[in-house]
Amino acid sequence: MRDVAVIGVGLTKFGELWDKSFRQLISEAGAKAILDSGIEGKDIDAMYVGSMSSGRFVGQEHIGALVADTSGFSFMHIPATRVEGACASGGLAFREGYFSIASGMNDIVVVGGIEKMNDVGGSSATETLATAADQEWEAFFGVTFPGLYAMIALRHMHEYGTTKEQLAQVAVKNHKNGALNPYAQYQKEITIEQAMNSTMVAYPLGLMDCSPVTDGAASVVLCAAEKARQYCQKPIKIIGSGQGSDTLALHSRRDICTLDATVHAANMAYKQAKINPKDIDLAEVHDCFTIAEICAIEDLGFVKKGEGGKAVENKITTLDGTMPVNTSGGLKSKGHPVGATGVAQIVEIVTQLRGEAGRRQVKDARIGLTHNVGGSGATCVVHLLEAV
Amino acid sequence: MRDVAVIGVGLTKFGELWDKSFRQLISEAGAKAILDSGIEGKDIDAMYVGSMSSGRFVGQEHIGALVADTSGFSFMHIPATRVEGACASGGLAFREGYFSIASGMNDIVVVGGIEKMNDVGGSSATETLATAADQEWEAFFGVTFPGLYAMIALRHMHEYGTTKEQLAQVAVKNHKNGALNPYAQYQKEITIEQAMNSTMVAYPLGLMDCSPVTDGAASVVLCAAEKARQYCQKPIKIIGSGQGSDTLALHSRRDICTLDATVHAANMAYKQAKINPKDIDLAEVHDCFTIAEICAIEDLGFVKKGEGGKAVENKITTLDGTMPVNTSGGLKSKGHPVGATGVAQIVEIVTQLRGEAGRRQVKDARIGLTHNVGGSGATCVVHLLEAV
Repeated sequence: MRDVAVIGVGLTKFGELWDKSFRQLISEAGAKAILDSGIEGKDIDAMYVGSMSSGRFVGQEHIGALVADTSGFSFMHIPATRVEGACASGGLAFREGYFSIASGMNDIVVVGGIEKMNDVGGSSATETLATAADQEWEAFFGVTFPGLYAMIALRHMHEYGTTKEQLAQVAVKNHKNGALNPYAQYQKEITIEQAMNSTMVAYPLGLMDCSPVTDGAASVVLCAAEKARQYCQKPIKIIGSGQGSDTLALHSRRDICTLDATVHAANMAYKQAKINPKDIDLAEVHDCFTIAEICAIEDLGFVKKGEGGKAVENKITTLDGTMPVNTSGGLKSKGHPVGATGVAQIVEIVTQLRGEAGRRQVKDARIGLTHNVGGSGATCVVHLLEAV
Repeated sequence: MRDVAVIGVGLTKFGELWDKSFRQLISEAGAKAILDSGIEGKDIDAMYVGSMSSGRFVGQEHIGALVADTSGFSFMHIPATRVEGACASGGLAFREGYFSIASGMNDIVVVGGIEKMNDVGGSSATETLATAADQEWEAFFGVTFPGLYAMIALRHMHEYGTTKEQLAQVAVKNHKNGALNPYAQYQKEITIEQAMNSTMVAYPLGLMDCSPVTDGAASVVLCAAEKARQYCQKPIKIIGSGQGSDTLALHSRRDICTLDATVHAANMAYKQAKINPKDIDLAEVHDCFTIAEICAIEDLGFVKKGEGGKAVENKITTLDGTMPVNTSGGLKSKGHPVGATGVAQIVEIVTQLRGEAGRRQVKDARIGLTHNVGGSGATCVVHLLEAV
């Protein structure tokens, strides 16, 4: 495979953005990434965009072409493709953009991710998010994602002794990091008491165990590695890409506390990069709920299965821990515009590996991992990036 | 780029399939393609699926994972990705599957396309199809696709003297071909009088100028060319792949009678294959409306701009013409389950290039083209296939 590097990144502010449209958000993120990369519009060979449910959230499908159009590139008639895998849509779009360069078809590709979730017509955000679950075996019976992840959490507590306080500690850590991120939806710290006593959503998950409903967009520019230095002083190389799938319905899984799609995706990426988990300096993982971060650090091999809660309690995953996780604030504090999340994770890792993360910089970061999940774990995509 | 071949194809019957679910349809098409290819389940490295609006048509997003799951492959945890580009979703999914093998990441990939459009909850099929148009500049004001293509037709008649009878001749030809296709929704011929006098939908387009609302699925198996003969006697090689985009709104185009996205995609594919239009033996083009077939044969370079109507009248594009177009019956007669169409076009060309098309076989067919359009032309994808 031909080597590929990230040469530019861009983010919009994440939050309840009532004054910005879908079109404005994706154009803003894309323009920032292009400016950051040093390329010009004429250099772009193709565009990819990840979005989970633009058709239901904003009544617009066909958003690959829309993004090229609204960004001002329709006159070039370049390929523009939308990729969907629920909340993993952004990570999957990144992976397809990577393949298109690795194959030799393209040299420079802009990848975006977006979701506009707040001003939703028709059905509610929760109802649309539930279309990522199994409609016939889960959503039909009324379960939504907090309920599904609550079942994972309860089982994890039962099997491994994980505590509600450990869950709360994930939220506290991520808010602490998010307070240092100017793009985050919630730039404020919370206390362990606030997290423990937040309004119950689905036992044991309270409001502070859940990522919010967010508007936002993210974008990156990918370039064939051999050309990257023409544009960029610090290209960040993609050294591994893995993807896995599983049953859509949680109840059909071998073990609901293990996301086998994550295990599969991570092993694929580690094998390609010829590294193992201990070589990784920091990770952005998919903490749609606090329990998801605990499962993730186990399934990615950072700690043994069942020891995730304890690892959080022991501050392994804090900004100055031995394995910083979600330095951006994660989905919990930075926000979770579902289709944008996977691309935003790449933005954070690239920013860290360039040494440009300011007050939340991880010292001497060289290899970073992103972990993006769709639904309750039916899709997972993992990327490994290295400063070269 | 690494060479890639199609080694298996599968189709469901197209039509109003009230007794088959989304899950049944995609599993059936996939199973047929896998059986046809000679591979076993364990050989599959990844899956791609094209679907325009499963989120609105059947209330289910995240269908990449769903397809792997419902087909019985979730236990393998292989990557499964959904690609969307309105009615070009199937063609785009095929292209992403191709890239994933060309890059060296995968050896064998199953690509599917599906849409279940008849038993729709909530909004109507027409309303959901309109999400492929520009919501802010077109759909908001009440226009739907028959109206958009009617404007293209009127302008084409004005500029080039194309007649309503020539439009009708496209429908008559495609029904004649569809009558020979056991998978087609309408396996019956129509007369020129029936086509000319059908109920008016949007002047000048009558009911017989419009493709129908269809349920159906299609699937193909792709394999690295160097391994194809391990599985298949007659691999069909992908010799060119092109994709183009344009403004989402029709009124923003340079010329509404020319789909620049088609011109761009075709040129890209011709250049890769090092061929020109006269080397092509047959084509499946995107005749969502009769005028679309006339524009397509012009924009693909089979005839000069403006001469498409005359070419149809002169029977250039019939089964025994010099450039047979839509031997399957096209979208008009075979049916148009939007996300499946692009993959079904590949199925027809592969069937023809293998010499297995029975009563609709084009003699000595060696090179075939597929042309799949999203919306009124904001996305186009062209593939060139060759019997080797």
